Amino acid sequence: MADLIAPGEVWLVGAGPGDPDLLTRKAERLIAAASIVFHDALVGPGVLDLIPPHVARVSVGKRAGRHSRTQPAIDALLVEAAQAGHRVVRLKGGDPSIFARSTEEIDALARHGIRVRICPGITAASAAAASAGISLTLRGTARQLRFVTAHARDSDPLDLDWATLAAPGGTLAFYMGRGAARHISQQLIAHGLDAATPVLVATSVSLPGECLVHTRLDLLALVIGKAPDIDPALILVGEAVRRRAPAEIEKQLCKSSPPGLQHRNP
Amino acid sequence: MADLIAPGEVWLVGAGPGDPDLLTRKAERLIAAASIVFHDALVGPGVLDLIPPHVARVSVGKRAGRHSRTQPAIDALLVEAAQAGHRVVRLKGGDPSIFARSTEEIDALARHGIRVRICPGITAASAAAASAGISLTLRGTARQLRFVTAHARDSDPLDLDWATLAAPGGTLAFYMGRGAARHISQQLIAHGLDAATPVLVATSVSLPGECLVHTRLDLLALVIGKAPDIDPALILVGEAVRRRAPAEIEKQLCKSSPPGLQHRNP
Ligand SMILES: C[S@@+](CC[C@H](N)C(=O)[O-])C[C@H]1O[C@@H](n2cnc3c(N)ncnc32)[C@H](O)[C@@H]1O
Ligand SMILES: C[S@@+](CC[C@H](N)C(=O)[O-])C[C@H]1O[C@@H](n2cnc3c(N)ncnc32)[C@H](O)[C@@H]1O
Repeated sequence: MADLIAPGEVWLVGAGPGDPDLLTRKAERLIAAASIVFHDALVGPGVLDLIPPHVARVSVGKRAGRHSRTQPAIDALLVEAAQAGHRVVRLKGGDPSIFARSTEEIDALARHGIRVRICPGITAASAAAASAGISLTLRGTARQLRFVTAHARDSDPLDLDWATLAAPGGTLAFYMGRGAARHISQQLIAHGLDAATPVLVATSVSLPGECLVHTRLDLLALVIGKAPDIDPALILVGEAVRRRAPAEIEKQLCKSSPPGLQHRNP
Repeated sequence: MADLIAPGEVWLVGAGPGDPDLLTRKAERLIAAASIVFHDALVGPGVLDLIPPHVARVSVGKRAGRHSRTQPAIDALLVEAAQAGHRVVRLKGGDPSIFARSTEEIDALARHGIRVRICPGITAASAAAASAGISLTLRGTARQLRFVTAHARDSDPLDLDWATLAAPGGTLAFYMGRGAARHISQQLIAHGLDAATPVLVATSVSLPGECLVHTRLDLLALVIGKAPDIDPALILVGEAVRRRAPAEIEKQLCKSSPPGLQHRNP
């Protein structure tokens, strides 16, 4: 098992959205083969429980607004661990190739001649669609799916190409979009998307506090304002995310729903 | 184990790109809990090996050009199996929510009052990025990722919004793009993308015949023309997919490379 990872080698491993059952079989084996695991705050507690007790574990926790370590500091920690001969696993929420700053880590390690490999993970959008019982694409109607980061550096305004985002025929998945929710809704409507376009707000997908709220574009800011600040939130927009769940799924849309967050399709 | 799936219930399960180790832990357990598994042609042989011998297995194989069953026929099979009291798993390549016609199956089952649930899977783009050792997004440079289907119905021309696809600042992932490769390359260049834009052609990702070829936009058709017709092919376009793999990864880019397909970054 341990020879899955050579000493001095680093694996960037996708931890998926939170539920340890949504980890890949490969990720599970890599975690067991590591001698040290660096993980960020988004990695679910159930996933961390899979780290064997003898394996060192280091939280390099980043969360919106509370960066406990800068990216260069994380890069340096990985380089140091690899150079010390560790079998390094760097656990990242979701998929390492999607809004996860993997390139910075890959480049830093490569500069030191350290071998890096990647194990993919389930990204938040796939997990949200699965929980909601919907598809992100629709033959004929939603022939494109766009993943967009709505995270702006500090005081910068969000400079997204709203005109093309508002074009019909696609599904939009906004990562890190909580703070920009009002802006997203206003801009998409101003650029021509119908105010009644279906929206799915998915927070803490696959975690015990999972909450899925079907709403419409003009109510997005209202709905997201009610979700607990600390929960990771994904915003899905488009005809594909219209609710089609059968009755049984509806009832458990919000596993532990904060008061007022039990919106349904309008 | 078997009570993961109630009799008469259907799970749409993501099988990932092919390698059974890229299946989620949950998918593995669902397969073991099924009484019948319907799978399409893209599901890897290693994944099918995980189906216990006592479980019925039905190939509803669809492949470009060779639809062995129509979508309505597949829908009807699922309804029939559920109504017969089976614990049904419908295994789909990659993620069920991405270009997998899940909505048709969900709606058909819902019309008959059958409960459907979804287990997400690793989509081809995530797996291709992981194999190539790259990220699909780049902070600052590639702030969007678009999944596009390049599959046109029979003789229809591909009516994609080339102007917005050619806008800089994003990564494009074309699914089912082999037949349209020349058109994709011509249109993106005609609409302003640099002919030297990095392209990654990824075929049979995570399967024994995996081949990753880094090329440039104007050479896309040439490169893809050399890949065996039968292999599933994903086309990734954009600055993010520029090769940054260390030497060791380079050497194994094409596990069993057809002659002439060993292109590298230009
Ligand atoms: C820094 S990005 C990381 C994305 C991750 N690499 C992925 O592929 O899902 C963090 C954002 O991902 C989304 N996200 C991650 N996990 C989530 C979850 N369990 N539920 C809802 N959204 C989630 C949220 O939009 C969050 O702000
Ligand atoms: C009908 S779509 C299904 C996509 C699938 N649901 C997913 O999420 O990956 C089939 C297309 O997916 C891509 N694909 C699926 N598996 C692949 C693999 N192992 N290697 C490369 N491309 C793959 C190819 O573009 C193929 O034409």
